[in-house]
Amino acid sequence: MAAALGFWYEFASTYSYPAAARIEASAARAGLAVEWRPFLLGPIFAGQGWTDSPFNLYPAKGRYMWRDLERICARDGLGFRRPSAFPRNALLAARVALIAADEGWSGEFTRAVYRANFAEDRDIAQPEVIGGILAALHRPATEILARAASPEIKRRLKAQNEAAVALGIFGAPSFIVDGELFWGNDRLDEAVAWASQRVRA
Amino acid sequence: MAAALGFWYEFASTYSYPAAARIEASAARAGLAVEWRPFLLGPIFAGQGWTDSPFNLYPAKGRYMWRDLERICARDGLGFRRPSAFPRNALLAARVALIAADEGWSGEFTRAVYRANFAEDRDIAQPEVIGGILAALHRPATEILARAASPEIKRRLKAQNEAAVALGIFGAPSFIVDGELFWGNDRLDEAVAWASQRVRA
Repeated sequence: MAAALGFWYEFASTYSYPAAARIEASAARAGLAVEWRPFLLGPIFAGQGWTDSPFNLYPAKGRYMWRDLERICARDGLGFRRPSAFPRNALLAARVALIAADEGWSGEFTRAVYRANFAEDRDIAQPEVIGGILAALHRPATEILARAASPEIKRRLKAQNEAAVALGIFGAPSFIVDGELFWGNDRLDEAVAWASQRVRA
Repeated sequence: MAAALGFWYEFASTYSYPAAARIEASAARAGLAVEWRPFLLGPIFAGQGWTDSPFNLYPAKGRYMWRDLERICARDGLGFRRPSAFPRNALLAARVALIAADEGWSGEFTRAVYRANFAEDRDIAQPEVIGGILAALHRPATEILARAASPEIKRRLKAQNEAAVALGIFGAPSFIVDGELFWGNDRLDEAVAWASQRVRA
């Protein structure tokens, strides 16, 4: 049985963008399945006393992050345009991503939403933007947007966030392998290697 | 002329430990000189409203950091014992490190102080501990400790911290190549590559 690489991501998280772009290929090369775990940073940051992204609260850190992200996107061949609004509200995208995970189209949906946010400067909080992405992926946009607003999906996203906290997650992207936490796009390779060792063991 | 790799580090900074352990060899392989720039995080964190290390202020982040550092030290073959006090006061060590930079023994002194703090759980705030390290390196400990307390060294450390802020530095370790900032042990290879491109250009 393939070991699983848990990918915990939030659509407003800048460093989750390059991680989402390469995780499926990285995992596949190692024979690993990706478990797509969308969650929300807002409630977790609020628990740390932050009412905004730390990249906004700490301007020197924020200035560095945008430059660093630009370098990473150039290295990885990813489009990048600094969003005119940051962080964007990722609630709707996260709810839709839960449906995507159920139905097996997480990769393409997740990459498209990150591209919209960080390469095309589109407002992913808008149902029209998410609906347009769904339509481009040949998914029934109206039906999916309605399901995303259902009590069941709302409840499941809350539960997913509670699971994130229980796993010790405090930022995104995070990777979980057998309860072992790896934080940050920089740790994807280590997380894959960790999971690969578990497969061989 | 060799391009310079500016290494900005603080002796209480956990991730500066593995960076300090390998930077000299990494830079040498690329034909680069290391500029050793000890500074203090305390005043920089205070400017961000923090009165303690963020790893203490944000427990989930702190728990992760210690586990992550343990993994990194295991990977890099570095001794590691979680210090019984964190963060330790690095003022004296930073002042001595300014003298080391003047005299060309930064590498061995810096590595020994990090080892004392993070592998041997010794209190680097104590003059006896720093004096012992100096003696082991065959340096005149009493004379150096006296010079470290001089107004000139105090003034220069303050100036170094002001220079750090002016460069946009907000954490440690940081690397500076021609004004380009790279933050974190994870960015050492990128900083070396950036400097190498400057040499070839």
